[in-house]
Amino acid sequence: MRMVDIIEKKRDGKELTKDEIQFVIKGYTEETIPDYQMSSLAMAIFFQDMTENERAELTMAMVNSGDTIDLSKIQGIKVDKHSTGGVGDTTTLVLGPLVASVGVPIAKMSGRGLGHTGGTIDKLEAVPGFHVEIENEEFIRLVNENKIAVIGQSGNLTPADKKLYALRDVTATVNSIPLIASSIMSKKIAAGADSIVLDVKTGAGAFMKNLDDAKELAQAMVNIGNNVNRKTMAVISDMSQPLGYAIGNALEVKEAIDTLRGQGPKDLEELCLTLGSYMVYLAEKASSLEEARQLLVDVIKNGQAVEKLKTFLKAQGGDDSVVDHPENLPQAAYTFELDAKEDGYVAEIVADAIGTAAMWLGAGRATKESSIDLAVGLLLNKKIGDSVKKGESLVTIYANQSDVEEVKQKLYESIKLSKKAVKAPPLVHSAITKR
Amino acid sequence: MRMVDIIEKKRDGKELTKDEIQFVIKGYTEETIPDYQMSSLAMAIFFQDMTENERAELTMAMVNSGDTIDLSKIQGIKVDKHSTGGVGDTTTLVLGPLVASVGVPIAKMSGRGLGHTGGTIDKLEAVPGFHVEIENEEFIRLVNENKIAVIGQSGNLTPADKKLYALRDVTATVNSIPLIASSIMSKKIAAGADSIVLDVKTGAGAFMKNLDDAKELAQAMVNIGNNVNRKTMAVISDMSQPLGYAIGNALEVKEAIDTLRGQGPKDLEELCLTLGSYMVYLAEKASSLEEARQLLVDVIKNGQAVEKLKTFLKAQGGDDSVVDHPENLPQAAYTFELDAKEDGYVAEIVADAIGTAAMWLGAGRATKESSIDLAVGLLLNKKIGDSVKKGESLVTIYANQSDVEEVKQKLYESIKLSKKAVKAPPLVHSAITKR
Repeated sequence: MRMVDIIEKKRDGKELTKDEIQFVIKGYTEETIPDYQMSSLAMAIFFQDMTENERAELTMAMVNSGDTIDLSKIQGIKVDKHSTGGVGDTTTLVLGPLVASVGVPIAKMSGRGLGHTGGTIDKLEAVPGFHVEIENEEFIRLVNENKIAVIGQSGNLTPADKKLYALRDVTATVNSIPLIASSIMSKKIAAGADSIVLDVKTGAGAFMKNLDDAKELAQAMVNIGNNVNRKTMAVISDMSQPLGYAIGNALEVKEAIDTLRGQGPKDLEELCLTLGSYMVYLAEKASSLEEARQLLVDVIKNGQAVEKLKTFLKAQGGDDSVVDHPENLPQAAYTFELDAKEDGYVAEIVADAIGTAAMWLGAGRATKESSIDLAVGLLLNKKIGDSVKKGESLVTIYANQSDVEEVKQKLYESIKLSKKAVKAPPLVHSAITKR
Repeated sequence: MRMVDIIEKKRDGKELTKDEIQFVIKGYTEETIPDYQMSSLAMAIFFQDMTENERAELTMAMVNSGDTIDLSKIQGIKVDKHSTGGVGDTTTLVLGPLVASVGVPIAKMSGRGLGHTGGTIDKLEAVPGFHVEIENEEFIRLVNENKIAVIGQSGNLTPADKKLYALRDVTATVNSIPLIASSIMSKKIAAGADSIVLDVKTGAGAFMKNLDDAKELAQAMVNIGNNVNRKTMAVISDMSQPLGYAIGNALEVKEAIDTLRGQGPKDLEELCLTLGSYMVYLAEKASSLEEARQLLVDVIKNGQAVEKLKTFLKAQGGDDSVVDHPENLPQAAYTFELDAKEDGYVAEIVADAIGTAAMWLGAGRATKESSIDLAVGLLLNKKIGDSVKKGESLVTIYANQSDVEEVKQKLYESIKLSKKAVKAPPLVHSAITKR
């Protein structure tokens, strides 16, 4: 088998066989196939797409290119959630304890983040004492006992995907549905998921700027999952503005606590109930999505959800007093209000730019070497559609610096007011529950 | 300027600017742009094509990537001919002396060949004493004096093209009209041509298997030439069977001598008169193609063409007695006849396979290290459309080995007879004389 013939075959729009795809991924991982052939194939895929079969084979070839996590000692169906990423997305912090409290096992392997705010582990480390450096056996014991635990990433998962992603980034082949879909799905499957719930974000603050592309990606991933025997469902949710109010690590932990109590932002609660009901349903803890949703509403109301958070934090060394006393979370030295300069309605909140402002405060890492300030961040006081009076606060800025003029400037540029009333965007655009 | 943005721009079907194309070619030549980005761009070009402007800029950027030959001290308009390559193509050997004898300056830089038979220099070295190791000044003096000289390739011409061609070969991006056309044209322009005549071959023995592709390539090259101020014309000629009768170095020299006398194969003569008349016209030695052709017919008839060959060979140390005494050329030890096994008409002569048979005899190099046997080769006694009686010779085999069974076997497989009468294919399919 020769790589050049495989490139030519794809270039000419023909379907690659399982053997050919395995040859490519194995050779690329082992460096017998050079980058210049792989990038040429990626560009051919960009133009010629991949069939359902090819996408499934590519995903599994990438899964098999490295280590895979064995969660078989955990009882029940392991459902993992993946979000394509946005600004101020606190869903993971809420969803874990929420679905665990109705008996869905959450065995989360998570990482630190590069970008606007930290990753899930960074956020959880805002809770004093909490740590993810636990042994595999302890991790499995905790999930079986409490239904929830988080562990740091270890092992060499999907090395082919890591290599290919870095290559795509510099060869203008990132925006290819089959390549994006197989990349995401391979990581989830390698991490041991039996079933997968996907939150595909769309809008100005998301990777998929328009709804049709987001739907296509969601459908592609649902099809891959189901074709490789992982039940998969997807929600397409709005990221034309940040989700919830909080952007920043400790601020998001507090927002998650509020949401688990039923006192959080309505958009965040709604998305968590939607994604959560899919997880409960796929874990076979309910026989319909409606029943699953009701279970979640119940555990919020009766306090089991917030209790589960305490159990979870404590089991991994965290100070669970933060749940009832959020003032025990890291606090910023200064707060500032961003006052509206005129009356009007919020018409636009550019999520990307808001995230960048939070990063400037120290909430996120610009490079791998940066350190994170867990206390700082932003709290939106208004969202799209809200009416505003001149002098009212649009955003509260939590900072450990006394001068935030640059941040304010960025925020003023990012939040646009209109004289006319504006309709809030829909939160959940659509859902894809089957092939 | 970033290469990834340029790749994305081309991927999305937009036109690259002159600056962008120069950035790409300069960076690729200097190795600041890696192969994996270049191959991705080449694949994007395969799918999105290039505009007329882009093709012209790419060609000139490749010309400027290395040395260029200065022929300004040679009087008159320097016309170069290029053939896209075929089997038994003796046109260069004929055309040089032919057009030189009507005053067109032929300053040929030529190379040795890899493949079925040698390159032009290898063929000329079948003439005892002939050599191309001459100084540049001597080369120019000879062209001014005799209107014809040949020199070996020197200097670092179009290094970007060399690098890109090697990359395209392993990334399934060879078959792209803008890339093929700019590659060929850059080499001709770097070698100093003022005007260019192209012989684009089509048919089973050619790189361009079908006529439409050949026409598209020819038109692309004519447009590039004219857009960069090199008057360019093209002929699309048939390579569904070898041209002329001879395949082999000394055999082709003899065939060239015969043709310059008006006693050569009719197809070879016709193609030389067609290509030659374009060269004479572009060199402004005639005011119409008809007049140019008549000049060539005249110098064949009155012996000036064959005299020019003698002058040319002698000036570079060659034994010009071979012109009147071809037995002074290297002779093979053995000849064998390939007898027809039945009556019929020649329906097919697979040019590629015939060329391979000649290479097996030693007429060509399989690798750079191989040596060439100048004496050996094949002489076709029949061509497509000819009638054959059982026992008549289809091919005469000139060998320096006593066992040619394998070669015979290959030839029998390559020459197909039909019971029904077969029409000879047209020699010149069409011509492209303007943008």
